[in-house]
Amino acid sequence: MLNPVSETLIADLRAALPPGALREVAPHYLEDPRRRYHGQAGVVVAPGSVEEVAQVVRMAHAAQVGIVPYGGGTGLVLGQVQPEGPAPILLSLERMTAIRAVHAQENALIAEAGATLADVQTAAGEADRLFPLSYASEGTARIGGALAVNSGGLAVLRYGTARDLCLGLEAVLPDGRIWHGLRRLRKDNTGYDLRNLLIGSEGTLGIITAASLRLYPRPAARATALITVPGPEAALALLARANAAFGGAVSAFELISGAGLGFLTETGLGPRQPFDTPPAWCALVEAGLSTGDGDAIMADLFAAALEAGEASDGVIAASEGQRADLWALRETIPAANAQIGAIASHDIALPLGAVAGFVEDGARAIAAIDPTIRINAFGHLGDGNLHYNVFPAPGRSREDYAPVAADVTRAVHDLVAEAGGSFSAEHGVGRLKVAELERYGDAVKLDAMRAIKAALDPRGIMNPGAVLRA
Amino acid sequence: MLNPVSETLIADLRAALPPGALREVAPHYLEDPRRRYHGQAGVVVAPGSVEEVAQVVRMAHAAQVGIVPYGGGTGLVLGQVQPEGPAPILLSLERMTAIRAVHAQENALIAEAGATLADVQTAAGEADRLFPLSYASEGTARIGGALAVNSGGLAVLRYGTARDLCLGLEAVLPDGRIWHGLRRLRKDNTGYDLRNLLIGSEGTLGIITAASLRLYPRPAARATALITVPGPEAALALLARANAAFGGAVSAFELISGAGLGFLTETGLGPRQPFDTPPAWCALVEAGLSTGDGDAIMADLFAAALEAGEASDGVIAASEGQRADLWALRETIPAANAQIGAIASHDIALPLGAVAGFVEDGARAIAAIDPTIRINAFGHLGDGNLHYNVFPAPGRSREDYAPVAADVTRAVHDLVAEAGGSFSAEHGVGRLKVAELERYGDAVKLDAMRAIKAALDPRGIMNPGAVLRA
Repeated sequence: MLNPVSETLIADLRAALPPGALREVAPHYLEDPRRRYHGQAGVVVAPGSVEEVAQVVRMAHAAQVGIVPYGGGTGLVLGQVQPEGPAPILLSLERMTAIRAVHAQENALIAEAGATLADVQTAAGEADRLFPLSYASEGTARIGGALAVNSGGLAVLRYGTARDLCLGLEAVLPDGRIWHGLRRLRKDNTGYDLRNLLIGSEGTLGIITAASLRLYPRPAARATALITVPGPEAALALLARANAAFGGAVSAFELISGAGLGFLTETGLGPRQPFDTPPAWCALVEAGLSTGDGDAIMADLFAAALEAGEASDGVIAASEGQRADLWALRETIPAANAQIGAIASHDIALPLGAVAGFVEDGARAIAAIDPTIRINAFGHLGDGNLHYNVFPAPGRSREDYAPVAADVTRAVHDLVAEAGGSFSAEHGVGRLKVAELERYGDAVKLDAMRAIKAALDPRGIMNPGAVLRA
Repeated sequence: MLNPVSETLIADLRAALPPGALREVAPHYLEDPRRRYHGQAGVVVAPGSVEEVAQVVRMAHAAQVGIVPYGGGTGLVLGQVQPEGPAPILLSLERMTAIRAVHAQENALIAEAGATLADVQTAAGEADRLFPLSYASEGTARIGGALAVNSGGLAVLRYGTARDLCLGLEAVLPDGRIWHGLRRLRKDNTGYDLRNLLIGSEGTLGIITAASLRLYPRPAARATALITVPGPEAALALLARANAAFGGAVSAFELISGAGLGFLTETGLGPRQPFDTPPAWCALVEAGLSTGDGDAIMADLFAAALEAGEASDGVIAASEGQRADLWALRETIPAANAQIGAIASHDIALPLGAVAGFVEDGARAIAAIDPTIRINAFGHLGDGNLHYNVFPAPGRSREDYAPVAADVTRAVHDLVAEAGGSFSAEHGVGRLKVAELERYGDAVKLDAMRAIKAALDPRGIMNPGAVLRA
């Protein structure tokens, strides 16, 4: 029922928008980061202001043409890539990159949707503040996309996801009207939470054009350690111990598997590894403190964990360089994974109490499908979020496993659902996981979502086919 | 277009529900806490389970009869009190008070909607955890109502509002279907944020029947001080200083005015006051720490604030008894206010940078209306949230000021709106502030809210007339 972009619409857009707003449909707009799909677009527009975004949406609404909002293009679930259906308008926020205001005293900042996470971090840093949203693609990912998907990353444990860092939004709704909601308030109970409804809706209910973001004081000092642990259960005990010792100041608790360290060796990527023999499991622990001696607390924590059998070895970073090396180990794992080539990737969340059981059950279920499959489970254990990716045996390729890839994903997601977990912790649903949402989502919630979508976007023009089937 | 409760419906409810579910329409169900309005109900039902709640909603849906959800009855904006319109079913959650599960390792707890905040705090405490949502009515207010209105209170600065403390919900939607969303996950990006849509919707989109709630480690020690400050501007400088010194561990920063201390003296309520001459302004500062010497940090903070002219006097609590007395000063102010009898009460939020200017402008605007009016501005300054209440001159009554009460509220809310603030920081809209929402709310957001309400509750049975005009 949607129409493809027509030559007439392109001409109308060209006439309505300032020069430079229409872009060539360059290949990078159509690729997903894992290069497995190919999107399409009838035209690429890059508006320079919220009014121009509203103009485009009004024209798309009138012509009944889909719009795919495009941030940094780093999304992993095809939220910004539409492989099928009538050719849409691809609306890139790349020209709306301003930091409109910094309110240091209020710990707030107003950024346009096209600002990258790194842009926002830099602006915060210049005001001696911290914008804590951080992950590997932060130099490319744009804040509008990060909010649209409610991205997470490396500091969720202390500071929350993108949702928790947003105080207000400016957005264009599907009828082309502008919602001016750039509040900088900690408390505002005046009606339904439209902000959180747009956050995480992946561009299907409107286009975020600017956001009021929360900043934090910069911790005066950081304490960082890589600690080997007997397994996930012990890692969680260590996490509880760290929370008690640092009193809420633990900002990262990342699980690294022996498989991940092995992949770094296999690919030659990443810094020199600190352990002679790669341990089966280790945890990267970081706390940011403004008072007290963080390194001393970390040393005491490590000693107590050794004593309790929750740790067997470890390295406490003694310099900023050592700290960077420990983080580089963790942050290079996705690149090593990409080089080896995953059979399937899963971005799962579990109740903390279910993590250890899942790790055992998952290994067993996958071995039953094909015992040569290698598992690299790693990530944000403090949030119960594992990137649970599976790989070919050495010397074989992902294509060799194509016949069983879907079975593996089914087995993993079934176990996750049984444990009360989520098949998408931080990456979102996009177009890639629509069938998973239909399978595992609560039917009553799904119907409510469909009703909300139909109410706010009756023509179905906003990011058609993402989250909900078009 | 709604029908009043009929004798037939009452008979049908009696037949469908177990004995004891129908209650007498006792007066306390119909009163608001400030005793200025009188509600109505055709029948009071108190279901014992989510299935029974769903049964009542299905019957109300079929009969096209309104339902007013009722928690502890402590709401201040008539969200639970319907003075006009066809007599509704009053649905009380008083029989659903179970703590269904405590997951101490995960810092999570599942409570039914009728559990009081105090019940949840106690259950958390028994597991050596903290449930930080806290305010004067916590012994009566029920968690379902707290979530429905997204209440705030005394520890928002560190732990957030009710919204931030909720991981998942079980709720009955307006068609009588049950949404099973009691997740215990820190991250879950699988579709629209129905949880946050229901939170703060004040019972107009469904009935919360249970919640998965976030717990925190209990701070090992608290440091508490009452510090006199030259004015709100200096108080905010002191807040920034406290945040830097305690590194995010400041859990309360409450402003108390000389007027408030004077009201305590005038009414004879509250503990002995620590200052011989009541200061014009003071701030109650509290931090909870797990490491370091909180009292020493507080003493250093106080000395530095004195040096910087941000403080002129102060008391650091040296015992748990002194701490309780300082808090009693703050927490008795609402009782003193009630005894004196406010002309008008305002629950406002401002960007922190606008607070000091507002306090000056507000006093000027009110003096221009009637110079005898007394202002007691107090509350959660750390959140930019002031309870800005105005009172008669000594010896006069609130009735004397009835002709100007609306003018005062208009002047206050106009100034708040100009400053980018909110006319409802934490109390909600209810029925009392519907006109304010229509006046000050963003028109595009309001239309989106109406579309969502119509989509999820097409018959308009859920808490009719609250938030949106029926």
